[in-house]
Amino acid sequence: MQVSRRGWLKNAGVACFGAASGGLAASLCGASTPSGAGAPPLPWPYVKLDPDAVAAAAYEMHYKGGCCFAVSGSIIGELAKKVGAPFTTWPTAVMTYGGAGVAGVGSLCGALNGAAMVTFLLAGSSEKEKQSKASEITRDIFNWYAQTALPTFRPAQPKFETVKVICRSNLCHVSVTKWCKASKCKFSSKEREERCACLSGSVAKHTVELLNAHLAGEFKAAYKLPAEAQKCRDCHDKGSAREDSRAQMDCGVCHFTKTPHPQL
Amino acid sequence: MQVSRRGWLKNAGVACFGAASGGLAASLCGASTPSGAGAPPLPWPYVKLDPDAVAAAAYEMHYKGGCCFAVSGSIIGELAKKVGAPFTTWPTAVMTYGGAGVAGVGSLCGALNGAAMVTFLLAGSSEKEKQSKASEITRDIFNWYAQTALPTFRPAQPKFETVKVICRSNLCHVSVTKWCKASKCKFSSKEREERCACLSGSVAKHTVELLNAHLAGEFKAAYKLPAEAQKCRDCHDKGSAREDSRAQMDCGVCHFTKTPHPQL
Repeated sequence: MQVSRRGWLKNAGVACFGAASGGLAASLCGASTPSGAGAPPLPWPYVKLDPDAVAAAAYEMHYKGGCCFAVSGSIIGELAKKVGAPFTTWPTAVMTYGGAGVAGVGSLCGALNGAAMVTFLLAGSSEKEKQSKASEITRDIFNWYAQTALPTFRPAQPKFETVKVICRSNLCHVSVTKWCKASKCKFSSKEREERCACLSGSVAKHTVELLNAHLAGEFKAAYKLPAEAQKCRDCHDKGSAREDSRAQMDCGVCHFTKTPHPQL
Repeated sequence: MQVSRRGWLKNAGVACFGAASGGLAASLCGASTPSGAGAPPLPWPYVKLDPDAVAAAAYEMHYKGGCCFAVSGSIIGELAKKVGAPFTTWPTAVMTYGGAGVAGVGSLCGALNGAAMVTFLLAGSSEKEKQSKASEITRDIFNWYAQTALPTFRPAQPKFETVKVICRSNLCHVSVTKWCKASKCKFSSKEREERCACLSGSVAKHTVELLNAHLAGEFKAAYKLPAEAQKCRDCHDKGSAREDSRAQMDCGVCHFTKTPHPQL
């Protein structure tokens, strides 16, 4: 059901009037109520999902609102179908912001940004233990992404066959440029759009697989930093002599490995 | 009001029973309702906020849930006080995920990630024109962040005085490392936590200033890519011969400017 903004506010008023004793509805009425008081606490109730169904939904959603919208929306959408509230109250469109590395900036891959948000929503909370677990799952998704030839998802009827690349990074522009070089396609091409739709399917599927494992109490991180980067951490991480770099990434992608720019 | 998960679900049930004719409450009941059907469409109704009040709130919130939680939660929290619904329904804690460059990875700065999400929530939508406007505001925040000596916000009673640095990047680990070098403090120090709390205040304040300008119909992007990076874009951007790099960042921070690592 699509609801206009005016219609929604009117309906919220009806809910206030009709069910003032309900905590949710009551909280919607009070202008002095703090943000979040009308939302259930985290984690929201996850149930086992079909990774392939979610991947197919993410692939389709990518063509409507981009990578971050697709990964977060496909998982929350499946939960809305199976569980209903609170997932039906999530403003799905907001995650459009993360597309193309946030507003086209080319920073953090939006598929990963969406996966990280959803992982915290479904496994995290303000409790330290749950927060650590959600972060551990998220870092495993990030390391998998950097170390795997992607996309792994192929739709039933692909628009183009897609070259797979290992990008060694969580950044959109690194991932896209490495794919452009391997495929010899431009970044505004339909082939690149199809590749990123398949990437959204891949990330959504992998995220659901890890969330299913977490639900079953069987999650174990499977991807570590590369040995070379771990060597960097030995001197720069917490507890080291320098302790000047807070990062869990493959350092050599950007640092100390560059060839000079070709002569212009 | 704090609501337990069980209490929230029970209350949602009350709302369904008591106000079945209300669109919001009704949508909360249906397990087959798609995600987002119970949320009002974007943009959510922004009203003019006091940038200084929001900055002070973000600084305090940083110490509770980190940068991404602080920037998004301070702005949405002020709107929840002034407007009420739908801001009272936002699950504030979810944005904790973006802290320390997402789950401690050191990728995109969480203050910027939170600012970008909120900007889309308050200025964006699935309509192309609003989406472009939200992206334009977001990119201006990112460029301001990379080109400004931060933090600009200083609380009434700082725990430490903080060195300001220009970091030329939107990445957490670049921002933190440059500050560690300038301040000679370690990244796990209380001084670094204070600096990032002030940074959250700075980003929240600047975001509100731009959202206020947008509300008044007076927003104009003020920060461009540096001329050197624009020269890179001439050969790699959309419409160029190569068209192989989708990014709006200061390329030289990572590319072609590195000195070799000191001998180990």
